[in-house]
Amino acid sequence: MKILLVGASGTLGRAVHQALSHHQVITAGRGSGDLRVDITDSASVQRMFEQAGRLDAIVSATGSLHFGPLAEMTAADFRIGLNDKLLGQIDLALAGQHYLNDGGSITLTSGIVSAQPIRHGANATAVNRALEGFAAAAALELGRDRRINVVSPNVLRESWDGYAPYFPGFEAVPAARAALAYVRSVEGIANGQTLTVW
Amino acid sequence: MKILLVGASGTLGRAVHQALSHHQVITAGRGSGDLRVDITDSASVQRMFEQAGRLDAIVSATGSLHFGPLAEMTAADFRIGLNDKLLGQIDLALAGQHYLNDGGSITLTSGIVSAQPIRHGANATAVNRALEGFAAAAALELGRDRRINVVSPNVLRESWDGYAPYFPGFEAVPAARAALAYVRSVEGIANGQTLTVW
Repeated sequence: MKILLVGASGTLGRAVHQALSHHQVITAGRGSGDLRVDITDSASVQRMFEQAGRLDAIVSATGSLHFGPLAEMTAADFRIGLNDKLLGQIDLALAGQHYLNDGGSITLTSGIVSAQPIRHGANATAVNRALEGFAAAAALELGRDRRINVVSPNVLRESWDGYAPYFPGFEAVPAARAALAYVRSVEGIANGQTLTVW
Repeated sequence: MKILLVGASGTLGRAVHQALSHHQVITAGRGSGDLRVDITDSASVQRMFEQAGRLDAIVSATGSLHFGPLAEMTAADFRIGLNDKLLGQIDLALAGQHYLNDGGSITLTSGIVSAQPIRHGANATAVNRALEGFAAAAALELGRDRRINVVSPNVLRESWDGYAPYFPGFEAVPAARAALAYVRSVEGIANGQTLTVW
């Protein structure tokens, strides 16, 4: 398969790349990769797809959120996650569908905070649930045997040092284990699902 | 209780107003009401709360979405729901928390498409799920016995003529029945919940 992997240089993205290395993987990212893309900029996303051409799978392992106390949170803070992890990834699906071959798949990334809220994580819970809802609805309209899923990983063991204070009692998972869910989405038959890795 | 009702002039808002009429209700809306507000404009939201003063409950029965075929949907289309029904209502919670008395409540509105996707409704499913996730997470951080819930109504019987083609087989509910869930949220003990009316 010819696969576009956005966010290929991140901790998760590198593991996903490794797990999909038996395919032709085109990497994309803001500062590195075969193609450069700012997912918050529709023109940049469009340009990336034009450069990539027809695809069998689009995989996103990227997206920023706002973390902070609810009592101090503003609409401007909240918009960070809406523009980046949410609309950025949804634009990969909306623009990408026009480059996706019959039978192809789209895989986006949410996270465990969708189901298990954490302190300072209201933006993350909202954004991740929206992504999972989008996939559930979009799967029913994509057509031509194309599929869309979301992978919801736990905190990654490789990122644990930075995130541990926010995730008391969470069981970090190796990025290589999280990466398996992307392979399941790309090569399996799941559609409209949230594939949890926890 | 002193209650601010945003979207008071809509079909749902009028029924909610009626159901809460044993309280002191301050109405707000874009074109009518005791106070005027554009929920997509943070400065306008802030001004409304300054005019309203301290509150025992904030109730929102407003918010626009984008409906359209997935195959034609763009990031700009998708942003309509993100800016209006999603971030608009979340801003009512984020800005409003600073005017909310101890023991007070916030009630936002999602909709049945959150759980039951419809054709052309990917934006609605995503936005509604985000609202429900936001309430679930924010409830855990609000503190001072303050609560936040989301009401998810079915299509309203009063709006059925316009929406019927999009909701085959859905069982429309009277606005007065949907309004009961807002009373349950305001006067009950629910917190972080999605109160479904279907």
